[in-house]
Amino acid sequence: MHSGVTVIFPCQGSVYEEKPVSAIHVLNGYGKTTGTVQIEEIGCLESPIALTNTLSVGSVLDAMTGYIVSDEDKRGIEVKSVNVVVGETNDSEINNIRKRAINEQHVIAAIRDAESYGPDFEEGDVGAGRGTICFGLKGGIGSSSRVIGLNGKMYTIGVLVQSNFGNTENLTVCGDCIGKRIAECLDVKSTVDKGSIMVVIGTDVPLSSRQLKRVIKRAAVGLIRTGSFMGTGSGDVFIGFSNGNLTGRAKKDQINNIEMFPENRIDLLFTATAEATEEAILNSLINAHPAQNRKGKTIHALSEYILHS
Amino acid sequence: MHSGVTVIFPCQGSVYEEKPVSAIHVLNGYGKTTGTVQIEEIGCLESPIALTNTLSVGSVLDAMTGYIVSDEDKRGIEVKSVNVVVGETNDSEINNIRKRAINEQHVIAAIRDAESYGPDFEEGDVGAGRGTICFGLKGGIGSSSRVIGLNGKMYTIGVLVQSNFGNTENLTVCGDCIGKRIAECLDVKSTVDKGSIMVVIGTDVPLSSRQLKRVIKRAAVGLIRTGSFMGTGSGDVFIGFSNGNLTGRAKKDQINNIEMFPENRIDLLFTATAEATEEAILNSLINAHPAQNRKGKTIHALSEYILHS
Amino acid sequence: MHSGVTVIFPCQGSVYEEKPVSAIHVLNGYGKTTGTVQIEEIGCLESPIALTNTLSVGSVLDAMTGYIVSDEDKRGIEVKSVNVVVGETNDSEINNIRKRAINEQHVIAAIRDAESYGPDFEEGDVGAGRGTICFGLKGGIGSSSRVIGLNGKMYTIGVLVQSNFGNTENLTVCGDCIGKRIAECLDVKSTVDKGSIMVVIGTDVPLSSRQLKRVIKRAAVGLIRTGSFMGTGSGDVFIGFSNGNLTGRAKKDQINNIEMFPENRIDLLFTATAEATEEAILNSLINAHPAQNRKGKTIHALSEYILHS
Amino acid sequence: MHSGVTVIFPCQGSVYEEKPVSAIHVLNGYGKTTGTVQIEEIGCLESPIALTNTLSVGSVLDAMTGYIVSDEDKRGIEVKSVNVVVGETNDSEINNIRKRAINEQHVIAAIRDAESYGPDFEEGDVGAGRGTICFGLKGGIGSSSRVIGLNGKMYTIGVLVQSNFGNTENLTVCGDCIGKRIAECLDVKSTVDKGSIMVVIGTDVPLSSRQLKRVIKRAAVGLIRTGSFMGTGSGDVFIGFSNGNLTGRAKKDQINNIEMFPENRIDLLFTATAEATEEAILNSLINAHPAQNRKGKTIHALSEYILHS
Repeated sequence: MHSGVTVIFPCQGSVYEEKPVSAIHVLNGYGKTTGTVQIEEIGCLESPIALTNTLSVGSVLDAMTGYIVSDEDKRGIEVKSVNVVVGETNDSEINNIRKRAINEQHVIAAIRDAESYGPDFEEGDVGAGRGTICFGLKGGIGSSSRVIGLNGKMYTIGVLVQSNFGNTENLTVCGDCIGKRIAECLDVKSTVDKGSIMVVIGTDVPLSSRQLKRVIKRAAVGLIRTGSFMGTGSGDVFIGFSNGNLTGRAKKDQINNIEMFPENRIDLLFTATAEATEEAILNSLINAHPAQNRKGKTIHALSEYILHS
Repeated sequence: MHSGVTVIFPCQGSVYEEKPVSAIHVLNGYGKTTGTVQIEEIGCLESPIALTNTLSVGSVLDAMTGYIVSDEDKRGIEVKSVNVVVGETNDSEINNIRKRAINEQHVIAAIRDAESYGPDFEEGDVGAGRGTICFGLKGGIGSSSRVIGLNGKMYTIGVLVQSNFGNTENLTVCGDCIGKRIAECLDVKSTVDKGSIMVVIGTDVPLSSRQLKRVIKRAAVGLIRTGSFMGTGSGDVFIGFSNGNLTGRAKKDQINNIEMFPENRIDLLFTATAEATEEAILNSLINAHPAQNRKGKTIHALSEYILHS
Repeated sequence: MHSGVTVIFPCQGSVYEEKPVSAIHVLNGYGKTTGTVQIEEIGCLESPIALTNTLSVGSVLDAMTGYIVSDEDKRGIEVKSVNVVVGETNDSEINNIRKRAINEQHVIAAIRDAESYGPDFEEGDVGAGRGTICFGLKGGIGSSSRVIGLNGKMYTIGVLVQSNFGNTENLTVCGDCIGKRIAECLDVKSTVDKGSIMVVIGTDVPLSSRQLKRVIKRAAVGLIRTGSFMGTGSGDVFIGFSNGNLTGRAKKDQINNIEMFPENRIDLLFTATAEATEEAILNSLINAHPAQNRKGKTIHALSEYILHS
Repeated sequence: MHSGVTVIFPCQGSVYEEKPVSAIHVLNGYGKTTGTVQIEEIGCLESPIALTNTLSVGSVLDAMTGYIVSDEDKRGIEVKSVNVVVGETNDSEINNIRKRAINEQHVIAAIRDAESYGPDFEEGDVGAGRGTICFGLKGGIGSSSRVIGLNGKMYTIGVLVQSNFGNTENLTVCGDCIGKRIAECLDVKSTVDKGSIMVVIGTDVPLSSRQLKRVIKRAAVGLIRTGSFMGTGSGDVFIGFSNGNLTGRAKKDQINNIEMFPENRIDLLFTATAEATEEAILNSLINAHPAQNRKGKTIHALSEYILHS
């Protein structure tokens, strides 16, 4: 099996109970992400975010539902409804996707991993990034973050991507379109921007769901800087959360306060999101290893090119 | 001239400076309302709301812009950008709309009226309701409100409509489809649901723009209860504001709090909006007087039918 | 188990290959329907539509994916990506939803049923309607249709609902709010409009996805006529398809024609959709039988009231 | 006066009668563009597109309305409703915007210009580009186009921009961030990405409004390549039309055909739009001349830097 699952916990403790503010932005909707309807309406998240391959969304959604029901059971809460977010990209060039091999055990293992890891975790061809291809090279999971200061207080915006898009010849690093040279050097020939990218943007900046939606749209800036033109067959989906506002803590039947970042400074968050997304995509590439596709052809890694050049 | 302008001030003092939370919902978009793009993005209002006829939107928008620039000038503020909301319905059956007779004087007069009126104002065939037709009867401006209590504090939701839609035979009051009897009794024959309705929903309930958007969508419930089926040629546009959150008072460069109504009680606001919209439409009809259309045919008033029956 | 699955085939032959034009409208988004993102982007459907309970969406999505992969395999097509639409309502008052009892066998059985049925099928407390409650009475699956003529050719608009919403006291039939009398007569006390409704609208009228979206929005008219005010906890999701335009038959690499219904006559489709939705909801009620909720209380059926009155 | 109007005719003959397919995409909605609501609903354009400054939208909208009413009058058509599209950017650093100096004569002159010009027209600091600033340099009107072939037939995608956005230090040409060097060389210090950009994308490729919306979204790719990060205060609005489908020619009361470009080749249009937008922005800069802002400071032109370097 050359596929996997990656699970992201958006806050400490129970996501189902804390319900961090959330937003979704679909840049290009050739994708199958679940849970989008309720986030648009209610503006919060009530499950961890799971990423996997296109044909395993149902299996992962089912396992995540089971996990939340049973996990809340232990906390004395009877879950009768939960909105589960599962994103995906298509890894069928490397993975025998039609086998639909991802099952409940893989999901539970990914949850345990996410719970046990601290701030550090592996990147590249791991989890939901096992079988992805990005700019014709081996893609995968990548992350990056930026720290923002406001009135002496520091906040973080972190971005995690599952990269699976792009023509080789368009790959651009800091404005340098190295893709053309890579195509030549490694004899890589991907010329269709298909596949997809999932971008998860998490922050502790207190934001309303409207503000958060504005912020996550700027992931497009980072994405385009790396060379994407948002190809028709790409599911480019951005999911954001802010654990700076936990809506589950709002008191029932009462007026509640939520905190909002000053709109006149929100460009700070826009540029941070753009930069972190660009870097997360590059990190997904640089940390991946060469792999073989299902026909035995080598999918090269960016690191190979760097060693060559 | 059988047309006019109606201006609504969403808060005390300068709208440009106070910037109440705002939301727009387009139920059916065969309409020309201006100012929608920025409200969707920023979630607040920075001008009074003006209503007029379809071909006078430009003229009213220009006059409102001039008013805001000059009014703020007096307060020592140089306005270089302002998002002006102008809504419209088409009164061309009664009004010689192609004359585009509404000019700056009418707008300034409507502003003065809005400023000088207290809670009471005329309804029916006044202002932007001068030339409208609703369910084949004389329509116009109507309003209604509901009071909501939460933890001993009272809040108000008010609705103002400019009614210009509907087939006679569909007019329904409290579930009774009296339209069919009216069509017979008054020999009214409107059988196309064209025209439009503008619904302005204002409240002092503290809401985020996301919540407010949810609330104003329920104006559709009131609209449909009166007999609308959202005809293709109708511009059914709902504009909401909450002066319970004045975003202009947020401190620059700082985290600010906004208050949110408890989502678990928001059905209170949904039913209030539905009821007040239904009643506002009926009030627009009951307060209008018979008129003549441009061909000399009488446009009857609902009050005539009530006297007959 | 008091839950189930209902599967709708939007066209003859393989949905995956025919790809009928499709549209989604979310009236109130407290729901978990999958497959919405891609329909918004591409405007077509590539799977049958499955309906089930809230916590079984993952399981049904997985089973539907498996079914499509294996069914297309038999036709010689290797499916590596498919957008599966699964809708849901919450039947946890009658059904022990936390058991998540719906499995692949139930889905396959529902597919076989859908394939073998002709135009007639059971309504009421069957399939995904087994455990639903509507206006405090037993709800379920209901359907209705209208025939439209244009230039001597007849077209059909059919509506199928999974009804699970509404306060008893709001239930309205032909403008008569019988809900209040039912509440008294049967001692029913539901006073919260929670739950949800799924509405599937299918037609052979040739429409673009933009037109179809306009048409399905009018399901709200029928819904509101029965007494809904779109309560906050309701997932009111409308899914439409037109097999009058099968996008899968478009020739690759060539300009293709699609047929569009004349926009100046689209009100015909609007009123048909409104009426058929209203009737489908009433049919879901009238065909359901009394049931017991999980605490042993009787959930009455509308037929009981009609016998009493 | 340092402002102006630019008018774009989307097709031969009367736009009001031909009604080309149209779409709008709001990338960042801090803007006042009119006419968006109806384009979203009906998917076509019925007026030429006018561009001007922020506070002259009302005046231009009014003049355009008058022009269409009187122009159609000559053709024997009584216009009682028309959806007029007016876009804007804020030129208040150079232009005394509060004077609102644009009047009907300027609009009529711009219409006459648009009618009399052939394929060639001036770029840079002309029309609605008179007072705009882009990347801290003099911006303005710029255009570019790409030719696409399909089955031996050639189609064109043209882009026209009104450029008024960007930090100097972000200006990027072909991946080279020359903005930093310009900032040093010319002592330009703009460091806030405010202002806005209007992008008008016109084509003869036959597209549905859904397809056209997908195409025009790719203007963001060109925009971001030049160095934009979609700043909060920017109104980034894209308006598209295809005169390959003139909806005004559809026969009333009949099923009509429209042509659609093959979705499997739509990447051709995506990359063309991205490239033409990037080039149009650069053309708006390279064709502009130095100007003075209202405080007497020189706003340099890109051509000056090129001569220096």
